[in-house]
Order: sequence, then structure tokens, then C-alpha cells
Amino acid sequence: MNESIQTYIRAVGHRARAASRLIGRAETAAKNHALIAIAEALEARADTLTAVNRKDLESGRRRGLDNAMLERLDIDEKRVRAMAEGLRQVAALPDPVGEITGLSYRPSGIQVGRMRVPLGVIGIIYESRPNVTADAAALCLKSGNAAILRGGSEAIHSNQAIAACIRSGLETAGLPADTVQVIETTDRAAVGEMLRLEDCIDVIVPRGGKGLIERIMAESRIPVIKHLDGICHVYIDDRCDMDKAVKIAVNAKTQRYGVCNAMETLLIANPIAPVLLPELVRRLREKGVELRGCPRTLELIPDAVPATEEDWDTEYLAPILSIRVVANLDEALDHIHHHSSGHTEAIVTEDYGRARRFLREVDSSSVMVNASTRFADGFEYGLGAEIGISTDKLHARGPVGLDGLTTQKFVVLGDGHVRE
Amino acid sequence: MNESIQTYIRAVGHRARAASRLIGRAETAAKNHALIAIAEALEARADTLTAVNRKDLESGRRRGLDNAMLERLDIDEKRVRAMAEGLRQVAALPDPVGEITGLSYRPSGIQVGRMRVPLGVIGIIYESRPNVTADAAALCLKSGNAAILRGGSEAIHSNQAIAACIRSGLETAGLPADTVQVIETTDRAAVGEMLRLEDCIDVIVPRGGKGLIERIMAESRIPVIKHLDGICHVYIDDRCDMDKAVKIAVNAKTQRYGVCNAMETLLIANPIAPVLLPELVRRLREKGVELRGCPRTLELIPDAVPATEEDWDTEYLAPILSIRVVANLDEALDHIHHHSSGHTEAIVTEDYGRARRFLREVDSSSVMVNASTRFADGFEYGLGAEIGISTDKLHARGPVGLDGLTTQKFVVLGDGHVRE
Repeated sequence: MNESIQTYIRAVGHRARAASRLIGRAETAAKNHALIAIAEALEARADTLTAVNRKDLESGRRRGLDNAMLERLDIDEKRVRAMAEGLRQVAALPDPVGEITGLSYRPSGIQVGRMRVPLGVIGIIYESRPNVTADAAALCLKSGNAAILRGGSEAIHSNQAIAACIRSGLETAGLPADTVQVIETTDRAAVGEMLRLEDCIDVIVPRGGKGLIERIMAESRIPVIKHLDGICHVYIDDRCDMDKAVKIAVNAKTQRYGVCNAMETLLIANPIAPVLLPELVRRLREKGVELRGCPRTLELIPDAVPATEEDWDTEYLAPILSIRVVANLDEALDHIHHHSSGHTEAIVTEDYGRARRFLREVDSSSVMVNASTRFADGFEYGLGAEIGISTDKLHARGPVGLDGLTTQKFVVLGDGHVRE
Repeated sequence: MNESIQTYIRAVGHRARAASRLIGRAETAAKNHALIAIAEALEARADTLTAVNRKDLESGRRRGLDNAMLERLDIDEKRVRAMAEGLRQVAALPDPVGEITGLSYRPSGIQVGRMRVPLGVIGIIYESRPNVTADAAALCLKSGNAAILRGGSEAIHSNQAIAACIRSGLETAGLPADTVQVIETTDRAAVGEMLRLEDCIDVIVPRGGKGLIERIMAESRIPVIKHLDGICHVYIDDRCDMDKAVKIAVNAKTQRYGVCNAMETLLIANPIAPVLLPELVRRLREKGVELRGCPRTLELIPDAVPATEEDWDTEYLAPILSIRVVANLDEALDHIHHHSSGHTEAIVTEDYGRARRFLREVDSSSVMVNASTRFADGFEYGLGAEIGISTDKLHARGPVGLDGLTTQKFVVLGDGHVRE
């Protein structure tokens, strides 16, 4: 069995590598044509898609998936339309491939610049949401990459139906159908095989829970674009505007709970804590947020839960907030240095010098002044789309859009130039 | 023994991580001050350096190092001056750290841009040449990174003497001496320990032979910036200027042999081969280059050596050239696709459309039109300095200068903005 999985995955890999050469040089118009044709195929087959999706939902229910998972798995007509709309939006984005920047003459007479080019083959490993199949395919295609998609076994029928639409759209546009391949087996060994395909896959993008991502990090021989945790901090400085501080902290914690860019720890400067915390706590508790505090916080909010050391390193993804009173900016920076997951941190201050220091010294993928951490998102940043968020430092960092699926090579133009 | 090595390397790693926070926010003037102070320390201690280096040379001779290795190991007064000069050149380069690009307003009202920041801690593993100690330290320091340097055991005394100059220069400038640490043991286990320090080292840059780089690739849990082979191709199109073609091919092969950007395979379009090869062969043989050819080449140059399949995948680093006659550009692109190491390829053509296709379709770190592959170099490209060349696709690709030792984070400026 595992041998046949290996053979199958290797064949997928080789087809992807061959397709990547063709899609890498495809013209923008052909890629956009394919994206629109996929959107049309999804809409035309909406009934089939929702019917097939019901099969996945039923077997999911039988297997005892919880409601949140079933909700993510569900594709109704509205979600089909949203997928199609997403494809049209990617078609409307500028093509990153082939852009040449910085082309300039060197003293030797040659011109040197950098050309943006596809990475090659992207492997996407994800769970549950079948719309990732369409979204990820669109981003890979537009950026000139071939894609190998491995969705969760619970969505296998839905994913295969979407894959058929993608294939048909690619063929309509005269592009190789192997540009996007969706793995057809639910055998978990397939993931392991993908992670060993160093010669066929250039980068792995996992989308899913921490367990999935940890497994991929441990096993993969291929570079991975990922983030593991979003332990985001907001630091409220004593020289802040209090209205802004309350607004930002409440938004960062409560606008959505289960997201990686939500605030998990609030740091607040001691001089302002007695004035600001009562109002902030009132607003947070109105929304049902549980508060866990350091000893100084407990002096000010006696009915808060005492925070343990573990709290400072926990991504709650829930209506829970840990609060620590710090002496000043330096103590806030130290706390962030030790406990941040490198995702997103914000300062609320009206002090120019402190804002400047925070921006420079915090080593996270997004660093903000007077704005909610919830803005850390590809759409909000104007990337047009997002394949994921990276908290790594090499290659892509922060929200990853089309650019993050490309790289740059040097181009040199001469006229018979040789090196002396 | 190995346990003490592990303890030692871990301690080095933790000191580097702590130093990286300080050097990452150090002002440009302080970093430049340190670079110049290191240059002055090297010059002031030139006599000590050359004396200590003689110890390395003597023990190298006793250990039977070949002349090429001894030559690389040798530091005379001229080399000390060159090291100092290199440090001053790096001091004169613009500081990449803190540069903000693309800062612009989004519809939500926030401003979003990217700030260039250091990677953190760079591990450099190299052989023989002690001048790498000074060069690599300078690039890491200027780009705001801490560095852990592990040189070859044959250069241990020279490297420690250079390390003392670096430490003294850092202290003169008021920067942490742990910014640059040179490993003090020659135990080979130290390399393995470095490659496991994922929490302390952000990227490994190996500089040395293929054996060293293969070992590091196999063992490292840390991302590696490297190139393994430089199997560079020049394709001479039938619509070329013949004078330029001969000039470029001769320069790409013979200007220096033992370098990664030298041409190893010449591809030539069949229609022009009978006209162009005789003159080209005459010029190459004048320089003592051995020629290995495909069957069609052998028809035109009967006394060339028949090329085997292995030749197309060999980096000679020697006065040897493999020659293949191809039907046209497509066949040349196919050959490059299958045999290139992704380093540097060049086309010689006066045909606009073919030049355009070659630039777009060849997937190498440098792609050239009518220029010698020997230009693939950080100094020639205007990067100011070079820590190495990368044939990988993620992060840095091609010659890696100061920019390649940095990354970009997102910065967001608001005025109380929250997400709706």
C-alpha cells in the first residue's frame, strides 16, 4: 500500500514539475482566462458541488466531527459564489511574474536588475475548508506556479469536485491541467510522501491547526511557509490617548476570538493602569472576556484570575485575556521579546520617540502603532489575497500574497561584455 | 567531551542571541565606528597576525596540506591590508537596517509599509581562508546581525588572532563583544552542535568545498544559504554576432577556472556551429582547454574527446569544456532545464525575441544576454560585498549581499484605527 502511495505521489510530483515550466512562462491573459473559466465552472456546477458536499457532511456527522468542523466543511450556494468571486478577484490582481526592478548600468557597462519569477511547485496541505482548494489554486496559478493540494480526508468529495472545475478551467484556457493537482487519496501516508519530494516541490504551505503544522515542521525536508502561534501583544503606554487605547484593546481582543491576529496579552504601563484598567475591564467583561492578571493587575482588579507563567505563552483563541502591568516601555519590550510568537504586536502611545523605538525594536512580522492587531491580514495590507501568514524570517514574513509565492532572479544585459 | 562541546556551543548561541538584540538596534554610526576600529586593530597587530599565521602554516605543512590550501591559509602583510580595506569598504556601504519601503495609506486609514530588519544570528561555517573571518564578521555586523564563525581547524590560530581584533573593535565602539564570536575549539562535533541550534541561529552560511556544503545540508535543522554546484551554460544562438560569441565564450571559460561562475558547458546552434566552432576551438586550445563534445561536435572537431552523459552534469572547475550542438533555442532551453545547477546561464544572440524568451524561461539565479557568466558576482552586481551565492529559490537568490542578511517586517501606523 505505502509503495503504491509513494509511486502515486512521485508521479504527481513529476507531472507538477513538468507543468510548472509551462505555467511559469504562460501569458497573463491565459492565466486570467483560466481563473475566470474556473469561476464559471464552479457556478455552473453549483448544484453538483453542494450535492457532493452533502456526502462529505453526512460522513463527517457519522464520524462525529464537531459543529465547528462541520460548519467549516459546509458549502452552500453562497459559498460557491464566494469561491467564484475570489477567483475573479485574483484574476483582477496585477501579474507579479516577469516584473523587472532596479535595472541599472554598472561601471563595467552591463545592466543588472532583478526579475520576479515563480517559485516552481507549491505544496499546500490543509484541513476541512474546501474553499481553500479554489483559493490556493488561484494564487498559485496567478503567480505562475504549479500546485499540489492535499486537503483533509473529511472534504475529499468536495475537493475532488472543485478539482474537476479547476481542471476544466485550465483546459478551457489552453493551460496544462496538471498545473493544479488535488491528491486523490485520503491515506495519511500521502502527506509524508509529499514532504519528501524535495526534487519536485519547492515550498510547502500548511493551513490548519497547530498539530498539522507541527507534524509538517518535524517531517518536512522542503522549506515550509508557516506560522505556529499568534501570541499577539498590545502595549498601552502611559503617554497614550485613553480613548484610542480602550478602542484598540477591545477591538484587538473581541472583534474575533479564534484568529491568529487577536490580542492574547495586554501590557499596560503602571502609571496609567489605575486610571485606564477599570474602564477597559468593564468593556471587556461586557463582551464576556475572562481576565487573568499579574499580581499588580490583581491589586487593581481583585476579582481577576491570577495568571500563571503558562498564561504568558498561551494562544487562547478564546474570550480570555492575560494582563500584565509593566513599569515602562523597556519592560514591555522585554516581555514581548520573551513571550511573543513573532506574529503581531502593537503599541498605543502619543509619544513619538517611544513609537519609533517600538517599531524598530520589536522583532515580529507585523509591528503597529495605534492600530488594532486585527489589521494583520493580506487583504487589509493591500496584498489582494493571502495564502497564509509567516512568522519565519527567511523569504516571506507576515501575510503572504502573490509576491510570497515568487522569487527574484538576477538578469544581466550586455552587448558582448566580458570580465577583465 | 561531546557533552562539554554541546554546553560550550549552546553558551555561544545564547550569548549571540542576546547580543543580536543589541546589535539589531545599534546606530549606523556605532556599527561603522566598530568596523573602522577593527580595521585599525588588524593593521596595528599585523606583525602578531603574520607570526601567528606562520604557526598555522607550519602545522599545515606537517599535516601535509597541499600547496593550494597552504596558499589560501597564508596571511602576509598585503592580505592584512586587504582585510582592513574590506572592512572600511563595508563601513562605507549604506546601512540596510530600518529602511522603510512602500509605506502607503489603505482604504481603512492605516498606513502599511515594510521595514528592513536583521535576520538575527548568522552562523558561518568555512574552511581555510582566515580572511573570511574578517569579511563575514563585517557583513553580519553592518547588517545588524550577531555572528557565530566556525573556521577550519588548520586556521585556528589565525582566526583567533583576527577574532581578538574584532572583539577589540567592537568594544572600542561600545558594542557588545559577543556580536561576533569565533568558535575556539577545532573539534568537528562543534559543527554538528551549531547545526542543531535552531533557537539561537537563524541561518547558516557555509563557505567551502562541496563536501562541507553537502554535510551541512544533510545535517542542518536551520535554513542554509548556499550553492552546491556552478554548472553554468553559454548558448550561442545562430543569430549571434560571432565576434561577441567568441569573446564571451572564451572569457566565461578561461578568465578563471576554479570559480563557480565559469562556463562548464557550451551549447551552440547547429546552423552556426560549422562556421563558429573552428575559430572558437582554436582560441580555447591556445589557452590549454580540453574539449569534450557531443557526436555532432566530434564531426566538426574530430580530435575532441567524446563527451559522456556524466559530462553534462559535471562542474569541472578546470580547463575542460563540454560542447553540445543543439538544433535551436528550444533544445538549448531543454538541455539547461535538465543539466543546469541553477547558478548562471547566458545566451549570445542579436535576436530580440529569443533574448526575451531566454531571460524569462531560464530558471537560474542569474540569466544573461550577451555577457560573460563571470559577471555573476556581488561586486560586479553592485551589492558592495558578497557573503556567498545562493542557488536556492527561497529568500536570497544569486549573489548575497547585505540585503540577503536582512528580512522585512510589516509596519502599520494608525491613529486609533480598529477593524470593523
